[in-house]
Amino acid sequence: MSHPVSPLAQPFPEVPAIAGVTPHVVRAGYKDWGRCDLTYVTFTEGTAVAGVFTKNLCCSSEVEIGRENVKRGTARALVVNAGNSNAFTGYRGREAVEQIMDQVAGNLGCAREDVFVSSTGVIGVPLPKDKAREGVEKAFSAAPCTWEEAANTIATTDTFAKGASATAMIGDTKVTLGAIIKGSGMIAPDMATMLGYIFTDAAVEPAFLQECLSAANLRSFSCITVDSDTSTSDTVLAFATGKAGNAPLVTAQSPGADAFAAAIQDVCRQLAHLVVRDGEGANKFIAVSVTGAVSDESARKVGMAIANSPLVKTAIAGEDANWGRVVMAVGKAGEPANRDTLSIGFGGTWAAKEGLPLADYDEAPVAAHLKGQDVTIEVDLGLGEGQATVWTCDLTHGYISINADYRS
Amino acid sequence: MSHPVSPLAQPFPEVPAIAGVTPHVVRAGYKDWGRCDLTYVTFTEGTAVAGVFTKNLCCSSEVEIGRENVKRGTARALVVNAGNSNAFTGYRGREAVEQIMDQVAGNLGCAREDVFVSSTGVIGVPLPKDKAREGVEKAFSAAPCTWEEAANTIATTDTFAKGASATAMIGDTKVTLGAIIKGSGMIAPDMATMLGYIFTDAAVEPAFLQECLSAANLRSFSCITVDSDTSTSDTVLAFATGKAGNAPLVTAQSPGADAFAAAIQDVCRQLAHLVVRDGEGANKFIAVSVTGAVSDESARKVGMAIANSPLVKTAIAGEDANWGRVVMAVGKAGEPANRDTLSIGFGGTWAAKEGLPLADYDEAPVAAHLKGQDVTIEVDLGLGEGQATVWTCDLTHGYISINADYRS
Repeated sequence: MSHPVSPLAQPFPEVPAIAGVTPHVVRAGYKDWGRCDLTYVTFTEGTAVAGVFTKNLCCSSEVEIGRENVKRGTARALVVNAGNSNAFTGYRGREAVEQIMDQVAGNLGCAREDVFVSSTGVIGVPLPKDKAREGVEKAFSAAPCTWEEAANTIATTDTFAKGASATAMIGDTKVTLGAIIKGSGMIAPDMATMLGYIFTDAAVEPAFLQECLSAANLRSFSCITVDSDTSTSDTVLAFATGKAGNAPLVTAQSPGADAFAAAIQDVCRQLAHLVVRDGEGANKFIAVSVTGAVSDESARKVGMAIANSPLVKTAIAGEDANWGRVVMAVGKAGEPANRDTLSIGFGGTWAAKEGLPLADYDEAPVAAHLKGQDVTIEVDLGLGEGQATVWTCDLTHGYISINADYRS
Repeated sequence: MSHPVSPLAQPFPEVPAIAGVTPHVVRAGYKDWGRCDLTYVTFTEGTAVAGVFTKNLCCSSEVEIGRENVKRGTARALVVNAGNSNAFTGYRGREAVEQIMDQVAGNLGCAREDVFVSSTGVIGVPLPKDKAREGVEKAFSAAPCTWEEAANTIATTDTFAKGASATAMIGDTKVTLGAIIKGSGMIAPDMATMLGYIFTDAAVEPAFLQECLSAANLRSFSCITVDSDTSTSDTVLAFATGKAGNAPLVTAQSPGADAFAAAIQDVCRQLAHLVVRDGEGANKFIAVSVTGAVSDESARKVGMAIANSPLVKTAIAGEDANWGRVVMAVGKAGEPANRDTLSIGFGGTWAAKEGLPLADYDEAPVAAHLKGQDVTIEVDLGLGEGQATVWTCDLTHGYISINADYRS
């Protein structure tokens, strides 16, 4: 965390303890930094797991193995290494992950496939097996830590610790969700472009947990972008211990399933927003709201084309209501759009409607809106009922400074 | 041309007069600037025309009309307005274009469809019809100008004038091509993202001229990107007067057709490189060479994913051989790629081969290469015979300064 704290940072929220989940942090020394960099979370027996992973075709061994093992639906532990992504390291990278899985499985007396491993940091350097072994060994006897400590430990270039929580009623039983996430650059959609972990005491069958997570992902992590670049390691995992004692959620028809799905959606949305708020160099949090598209997915794609446009993002950085650049971005999205039915606004004030600049366009409220930290761009395509909101940040000198100086 | 001249600028080349083509420039006063901003080029009767246009769905009236009229295959005049793109201006924008077409057609005694109009500049403000009318009227009696004057007049945010030329032998007849282009931002592929004009005295049937231009476009304008943003006005037109007196080129089988196709390809490549060299904020000219892909088109898409990656472009700006970011960009392209057959190099030195960092990787020559103005990135996917080269520039503080300050 060597960069200045994002002006959009938010304080770490109250994230409650989750029954059946115990986090620990230790210092493995993956990098020459004076901080913990290995996070070890254990789960009681019977914990369900679900996950979404990067679609990047050059993904890490962690992603390959996790994607396979999440299908079994059970978990006993999570290990997160920070400072080394272990990506693009061939068989040596895979060996390091398997060593960690075996070591933890031996300690807990569980199947190796119940141990989930993530790594984040520099690409192309195999995770040092000796450091991993010593770190994991230390973790076995480490005292439990707070969620904020865990959030700080999974972080790399993040400038603030990120967490979220929610509750839901399942029948008469209150279930609790707590979550942490890391990520600030190499953030693009197409799934979950960062490392995020959601923990709950709810009793949920793995298949339904996956259904909830996948649905929430579509309207949260798949709707954010910082720089259009998709990491090779991105992972979001959800763990459900069942310790709340609710009647297990099996399908969307189970009593309380809606409330739980809404809570996981709420947590994912919170986490996704926090990642954007820590976007490299970000000074403004931008919501792009697209309506009138031929479908929700089409609206999302148009929104992402706007959110990924360097010219739109620099215009917002310059507090310039340059709606012409928004028109350009709509047109390049490749989705159905008609210049003559297109309307564009900022902060709730239309600048152009149905293909024409508004004759009585009052720029004053728009100029005032753009000076704020939270900016909205409204686009109505005038074609159908599809809608979506996506989130991004502005593109500033800070992004260049961070990424032209970062050493591989 | 208010920004500092690009460090990658090249002097305006010798572009010869083209028989049957007469350029003129005048001041229409579209913006409050002390320079010519209307370019008027006339062609002798019998001139063939071909064109490629933006794929942006929110394109300008100029593009809509030009795309339609180019199918007729004949041209008598070209009018280029600078300072106002006339895009997203509804029926009023269309009226302004039709007024110019009628005015020129009346003067030359030709069909209005033989008059091609382009406009570049701010989006959303209808081209002022009175200024256009006065400007065109002045152009009718203006003295012919040089190609460099024309290149300066079609420019907007360009920092240097751009031209190119080539010759080809068709039988015993030498034919000559001269060309000018403008563009430095809102430059992405997917066709020709700027305004470019190619003039030749060769006798070429329109259909074959279109075939040559479309083929050249695929390996030139479709292989460059500055910022991944696709303009709403991009146009490349080719005009062939036939004044050289060669036996007309009708198909690829006509004697001399190969030489002419190669010459037009050569000119398009020169023009495309010049646009990248004037990329907003560019300090380095980057060639990304992709081999071993499953097809040439797949190689081009992988190359463009690399060339559009902000993280790759900032790494090159920082002279950092961050091949991990190249891996990331390969993986997000969505084209067939295999982490374990992938090799990456810089300036002819491999950094990683077949999925692993090279054990004996010598960073010294790479570091020296990256300090230069011309940088190459080599990627071998190890899958097939497909290959492509694409060109881009680095992403620097200059890009942010230019685009966060630019006023809509």
